[in-house]
Amino acid sequence: MKKINLFIIFISLFAINANAQSKQDSVTIKHIYDKELTDGRCYGWLDTLSNQIGGRLSGSPQAAKAVEWAQKLMQQQGFDKVFVQEVMVPHWVRGDKEVGKFSYGVKKDKQTVTAHICALGGSIGTGDKGIEAEVVEVHNFDELKKLGKENVQGKIVFFNRPFDPTLINTFAAYGGAVDQRGGGANEAAKLGAVAVVVRSMTDASDYVPHTGAMHYQDGVAKIPAAAISTKDADALGANLKAGTVSFYLKMNCATLDSVKSYNVIAQTNGSEHPERIISVGGHLDSWDTGDGADDDGSGVVQSLDALRILRLSGIRPKNTIRAVFFMNEENGLRGGTKYSDLATKNHETHIAGIETDRGSFQPIAFSINRSGDTLSKLKSWLPLFEPYGIWNIQHDDGGVDFIPLSQKGVPSLELVPEDQRYFDYHHSPLDTYDKVNKRELELGAAALASLIYLIDEYGL
Amino acid sequence: MKKINLFIIFISLFAINANAQSKQDSVTIKHIYDKELTDGRCYGWLDTLSNQIGGRLSGSPQAAKAVEWAQKLMQQQGFDKVFVQEVMVPHWVRGDKEVGKFSYGVKKDKQTVTAHICALGGSIGTGDKGIEAEVVEVHNFDELKKLGKENVQGKIVFFNRPFDPTLINTFAAYGGAVDQRGGGANEAAKLGAVAVVVRSMTDASDYVPHTGAMHYQDGVAKIPAAAISTKDADALGANLKAGTVSFYLKMNCATLDSVKSYNVIAQTNGSEHPERIISVGGHLDSWDTGDGADDDGSGVVQSLDALRILRLSGIRPKNTIRAVFFMNEENGLRGGTKYSDLATKNHETHIAGIETDRGSFQPIAFSINRSGDTLSKLKSWLPLFEPYGIWNIQHDDGGVDFIPLSQKGVPSLELVPEDQRYFDYHHSPLDTYDKVNKRELELGAAALASLIYLIDEYGL
Repeated sequence: MKKINLFIIFISLFAINANAQSKQDSVTIKHIYDKELTDGRCYGWLDTLSNQIGGRLSGSPQAAKAVEWAQKLMQQQGFDKVFVQEVMVPHWVRGDKEVGKFSYGVKKDKQTVTAHICALGGSIGTGDKGIEAEVVEVHNFDELKKLGKENVQGKIVFFNRPFDPTLINTFAAYGGAVDQRGGGANEAAKLGAVAVVVRSMTDASDYVPHTGAMHYQDGVAKIPAAAISTKDADALGANLKAGTVSFYLKMNCATLDSVKSYNVIAQTNGSEHPERIISVGGHLDSWDTGDGADDDGSGVVQSLDALRILRLSGIRPKNTIRAVFFMNEENGLRGGTKYSDLATKNHETHIAGIETDRGSFQPIAFSINRSGDTLSKLKSWLPLFEPYGIWNIQHDDGGVDFIPLSQKGVPSLELVPEDQRYFDYHHSPLDTYDKVNKRELELGAAALASLIYLIDEYGL
Repeated sequence: MKKINLFIIFISLFAINANAQSKQDSVTIKHIYDKELTDGRCYGWLDTLSNQIGGRLSGSPQAAKAVEWAQKLMQQQGFDKVFVQEVMVPHWVRGDKEVGKFSYGVKKDKQTVTAHICALGGSIGTGDKGIEAEVVEVHNFDELKKLGKENVQGKIVFFNRPFDPTLINTFAAYGGAVDQRGGGANEAAKLGAVAVVVRSMTDASDYVPHTGAMHYQDGVAKIPAAAISTKDADALGANLKAGTVSFYLKMNCATLDSVKSYNVIAQTNGSEHPERIISVGGHLDSWDTGDGADDDGSGVVQSLDALRILRLSGIRPKNTIRAVFFMNEENGLRGGTKYSDLATKNHETHIAGIETDRGSFQPIAFSINRSGDTLSKLKSWLPLFEPYGIWNIQHDDGGVDFIPLSQKGVPSLELVPEDQRYFDYHHSPLDTYDKVNKRELELGAAALASLIYLIDEYGL
């Protein structure tokens, strides 16, 4: 009995201690949020990046300008160390505004309709004359294969599978449709198609085309690939039900020689374990048709403000903390790969890589690519975040830029915001600064700073 | 032992039954969400209400048009009963675009700056010549009282207390500032002020003034009351630190004779207890400077679509379900009061009143004005809603339009969406259709339909 009583006392003391600890953490986190919401800088930084530099596709003059801006900004903030990592990035250029139109009806009654299209990133051009061919519509690769060479040869394949609207998570809907954009050109080329037109990756119904990466497969003919707005895709699909439709597209996009660019990194040195690193980051590059405020201007400014606000809150981290502005997430992942390569080369010890690349909206969760004890530990911190709207810990892949590092066993986490509006703007001219809400952006920065604080304090 | 075993068996069967029930509910709710997300109508209805009718202040021609539109729409949908409730509403008119400016500096170097202002709803005008007077700034009624008559008499009182940015819930921040708007004119008039200028009720920093209701107290002199944009308020405050500032405002707003208007109601008759009523509603009236899409066009269309989607989902409710489009929430609550009065007069039995008037954003919670068993019951349903992002049940006041009914003991609930962006648009020219996201709006309608289904099935 005595033993049991002692055990109970021990457990009680442990609980009291855990409670006191949790209370102290809750005070610290409140302090971080208060600081960020009253003295946040990320929204102002995003203004400069979005409105004065703008869209910054890898290899572009704007991307170079963004690297310079980021480095200067980090230096002004007086972090312990500011440095860059050189990385060669692809240099794809869109060229002139793309032309798309489709025609239907018999000779005399032939109707021609303008279609809002844009080249997919990485696509070859059509040549100055453009390409015109009959359209064949499919919704997935199986349908395409069933059509076979006899029905595809010489034609333009139109991929028209929409987002599944019943999926509550729009990233799941995106995941269920994006194979058309990434691999559609390859699959169509294998059957002799001359080009592909892909329904834009969005659940919005409008006339805005959404770009994004596509990839050519070795040994397969390269054919031009364009995105078409969802309203045009619906109209094209409707006309195809009534009869033959031909599509004309002209694009003079091209891939030029690779260009030297940089990851840009700010660092706060660890007070106890400077050799151990916690990284938080997003990507500095963006697509070119908007100003990249949401994807992922918001992520880089949140990362840097998280570091800044930790320092302002008087928190001296035990481990080294880095804010990493990755280059070339959108069409190459060269920055993420370089970061991982250098980690190995320099024998760095990485505790965690935390990404913020899912938009600037109200944060509702963190994701982590770990299960078991690490996931449980993260879940045990949830009550600390609920007052700020973060109510869920998801087991997920983690952030894209940290994939190379995570493949070496480093836990990969990600800030998960509300996602209903994300694909309305994603990779399109609508991804602009005015879509970002100051408080939502700051709540994200504070959430990241708080998560870094907990990982620094208690590990994963 | 036998007794205990039987008890265990009983409990187990109960648990199995409860699980099966919960599984069936989860299937039903998934069905409701799927229907709404694939075949929702609310976004299209909101388009008509916002873009073809527009802002619809009580007593305005647009409000009359909205009543007519709502009635027709409900009739087209073929509900069991569509009816109106006559209600006399105040008729305040804004008149011409308000003029505001402030001047500072000595005679030769006098600078005059345009201020973006608008009359507060219910305010008297200034007369054609406008009013010019020295400004005295205060942040709350205590500061004002301390100034006393000697410092206030003949002056324009400038209420400049901002939202508290550290409050995560923006409705709490609004609640902490809105006394300035509602009662500022009374408190200032008691000390002899000639007008008041009130910092706009928003956490956004811009040049957009936000209107809203103010009230005159019997026996206190009526003085004009205007809202000023937050950026102008900051500039005015900064100039007051440097010296004397005078403010000029001209408004020809006025209160005309009350006007006959209507609550508009669609009803699905209960199959078992037609005499018991569950109401869901928002308000049809709005302020006049925007098109009232968010406040509260979204609420009325969600309410009606909830009723429609329940029927489409093949759910025949036991109790009578009503979608109520209340008139005059913004400046009188006459519709809500009439609804409650008629409930008493007609000896109606009301099970619950569910409001949707907190914007069209991603739903995250329900609130209810009950504690104890009712609150626990609602909380027990939470796992059914978590797949759709609703993760919290709050104990709160419930919806404004249902206040009169709730004062008679009817449980009052409200849909609680994300709120970070709400006060950016609230009562301002920025409250327009383009701010509403189709999916977020539909998620709200589906959440309401699901909640109605559960209350209808299991009571509160």
